[in-house]
Amino acid sequence: MFILVNLKAYPCDPIEVATAARDVAEESGVRIAVSPQAADVSRVADTGVETWAQHVDPNGHGSHTGSTLAEAVAEAGAVGTLINHSEKRLKLADIDGSVQAAERAGLETCVCANNPAQIGAVSALGPDSVAVEPPELIGGDVSVATADPGIVTDAVDAAANVDEDVEVYCGAGISTGDDVVTAEELGASGILLASGVAKADDPRAALEDLVSGL
Amino acid sequence: MFILVNLKAYPCDPIEVATAARDVAEESGVRIAVSPQAADVSRVADTGVETWAQHVDPNGHGSHTGSTLAEAVAEAGAVGTLINHSEKRLKLADIDGSVQAAERAGLETCVCANNPAQIGAVSALGPDSVAVEPPELIGGDVSVATADPGIVTDAVDAAANVDEDVEVYCGAGISTGDDVVTAEELGASGILLASGVAKADDPRAALEDLVSGL
Amino acid sequence: MFILVNLKAYPCDPIEVATAARDVAEESGVRIAVSPQAADVSRVADTGVETWAQHVDPNGHGSHTGSTLAEAVAEAGAVGTLINHSEKRLKLADIDGSVQAAERAGLETCVCANNPAQIGAVSALGPDSVAVEPPELIGGDVSVATADPGIVTDAVDAAANVDEDVEVYCGAGISTGDDVVTAEELGASGILLASGVAKADDPRAALEDLVSGL
Amino acid sequence: MFILVNLKAYPCDPIEVATAARDVAEESGVRIAVSPQAADVSRVADTGVETWAQHVDPNGHGSHTGSTLAEAVAEAGAVGTLINHSEKRLKLADIDGSVQAAERAGLETCVCANNPAQIGAVSALGPDSVAVEPPELIGGDVSVATADPGIVTDAVDAAANVDEDVEVYCGAGISTGDDVVTAEELGASGILLASGVAKADDPRAALEDLVSGL
Repeated sequence: MFILVNLKAYPCDPIEVATAARDVAEESGVRIAVSPQAADVSRVADTGVETWAQHVDPNGHGSHTGSTLAEAVAEAGAVGTLINHSEKRLKLADIDGSVQAAERAGLETCVCANNPAQIGAVSALGPDSVAVEPPELIGGDVSVATADPGIVTDAVDAAANVDEDVEVYCGAGISTGDDVVTAEELGASGILLASGVAKADDPRAALEDLVSGL
Repeated sequence: MFILVNLKAYPCDPIEVATAARDVAEESGVRIAVSPQAADVSRVADTGVETWAQHVDPNGHGSHTGSTLAEAVAEAGAVGTLINHSEKRLKLADIDGSVQAAERAGLETCVCANNPAQIGAVSALGPDSVAVEPPELIGGDVSVATADPGIVTDAVDAAANVDEDVEVYCGAGISTGDDVVTAEELGASGILLASGVAKADDPRAALEDLVSGL
Repeated sequence: MFILVNLKAYPCDPIEVATAARDVAEESGVRIAVSPQAADVSRVADTGVETWAQHVDPNGHGSHTGSTLAEAVAEAGAVGTLINHSEKRLKLADIDGSVQAAERAGLETCVCANNPAQIGAVSALGPDSVAVEPPELIGGDVSVATADPGIVTDAVDAAANVDEDVEVYCGAGISTGDDVVTAEELGASGILLASGVAKADDPRAALEDLVSGL
Repeated sequence: MFILVNLKAYPCDPIEVATAARDVAEESGVRIAVSPQAADVSRVADTGVETWAQHVDPNGHGSHTGSTLAEAVAEAGAVGTLINHSEKRLKLADIDGSVQAAERAGLETCVCANNPAQIGAVSALGPDSVAVEPPELIGGDVSVATADPGIVTDAVDAAANVDEDVEVYCGAGISTGDDVVTAEELGASGILLASGVAKADDPRAALEDLVSGL
């Protein structure tokens, strides 16, 4: 299982979370990455934790003021990127362009989508992984296992129907170690979470709980 | 073969094109539709020609000022709609929503996309048909058969890989009857064209040429 | 006072509202317009009521599939248009373009904005009128006179500071004849309202109440 | 005069340009800043040069994955930000929000716009400065002084009409020291330029030329 901690625009200390994630990954052997603001990529990566961007734009080098250039976040230390997160929805043509831009820059890609049909859609664009984020679970306290476990298995099926090689992550509804185990049993090979770690009083303890059942 | 004449925002007479399309469809037995501005749907539909919207928004009834409501264009006489045309690119989640909105309103759907990978993607969203619009052919005088016939066959394969029931249209690079025959031979079951008819001195003659080889 | 009834994408009968608005305007001498979906402009205009579009795009004639062309809604019978409604927010450059497009097509323009600062901003773009829509009042039952009368007077001042000739409308928080009188006293020369008429059991009675104090 | 060097998404070495800008600013006494990709803000700021972001989003802290948070770029070392650059056009309400977000984070603001009317509009939103970027001059080799000097004086007048305190920069058509002098004579108190320095074989020499007439 892969655990990606999305720091969003939270008022947390990125270095505290990054350090905790690096240590728990090392101690547990579980792959854990942290995804900070673009402006924080370099100092997060400097901790040694696996670092992901939250978004990259479809453009390459050129006249693109205000874009998030894949090459720039890669140069700063990112090794992967989210694309089309529910809080940063893109045009289909730009998802396609951003996946290609990320690949050119050597970034691993995880494209997010709302439901199994859209998971099938983004799987056709050749990303390394996809994450299903049911809108009703985002930012809430309800576990995907409790609310609607079928959405994960349906997403796994939808992705496999289009491209057998794409990994499927569970992008919402995960906050405990039990949720992680459930997500794995439903066929997910990774999870995305945010406030459960980033806003925790003790990010290290939160991460230790998440990996406890693996 | 299905021929869809997109009037875009051209300064043409929608009724002249609609009347010609209605007559040529009747005389030839070829299915021909006309897609005008939303404000022109009712008077185009009044001619008796099959009428399509150029776009519908993902919303249903409600507080959506300035939207193009699927139910409104259907009530005005449209029986189908383009979605995600290259000049009206949508977010993936909105393509999904617009396909669902159109279906609720009883509209046939054709989702446009740039390349075979994106054609695979939109085919996963359950439209009735998809149209491949290679950017390099849009608005130009180059025929898809000359420029890159592989893009049509690749699009047909990409759609079939995801959903065997979705029709594939050729969305650019068609201006003559020979182009239509070629598109059919490449596996397309319809074509989209615009200026070739809408801007023709004699739209009826242009349409007669298009259906001449079928 | 000018009363603009915005039908949004409501499931109302546009003709019933249009007929009532036409009759009440005639009987009372108050200027009343109705703003339907683009697809409904022609049949609303056919009732004889003053008809406005809910939005126009900045483009002119050309390759703009899915756009709402100012010339098309004008040809269908609209004589004015909203621009940048809170449910259809535009880029600044496109507000500028849409005002110009509307003027080329002979449409009167009303540009909406959230607060006095933005009202000042849009007044610099040369519209005929602007409408202040405080987000906290939109769609609610609270009257602008009760909630925050200062926002209307501040908007009037902000517009006058930039362009003395621009009219200021009250774009939210109006549902009764008393509200209309208050808006006028605060310096507004018109009001925008939607559900208060469009969703009323008796649109005619709602309109008669609105004009009762004028 | 203030000289802002926008590095866009160019394949340049941000540190080489930053170092040159720092040195030329120090030697000449002219205020010079460099605006890199968000991911490069910290290492550019580490050179000691005045550092600006290319864009900030209107959001504050919270669930805003993929946003460019004003506080994050400020924490990384930026002291100012461009907003609404011609390559990153924003909705009017978001320009307003981004100016406010930047101010909360202690960033100086420069809002870009296409023409004098839009310069008047953005001046109403309370930025520290505005920059006029005529589309026909962006990225070209034509000097604003040659092409259309009136656009700068008109922009200065439009800004002053709305807010006397806002500075006006010349945002395109500047590549030589003579252009800088001309811009100053036309009433601009700063300039934005990009490729003239960022793509120069010798950025230091380019900057020395720019300040030579001041």
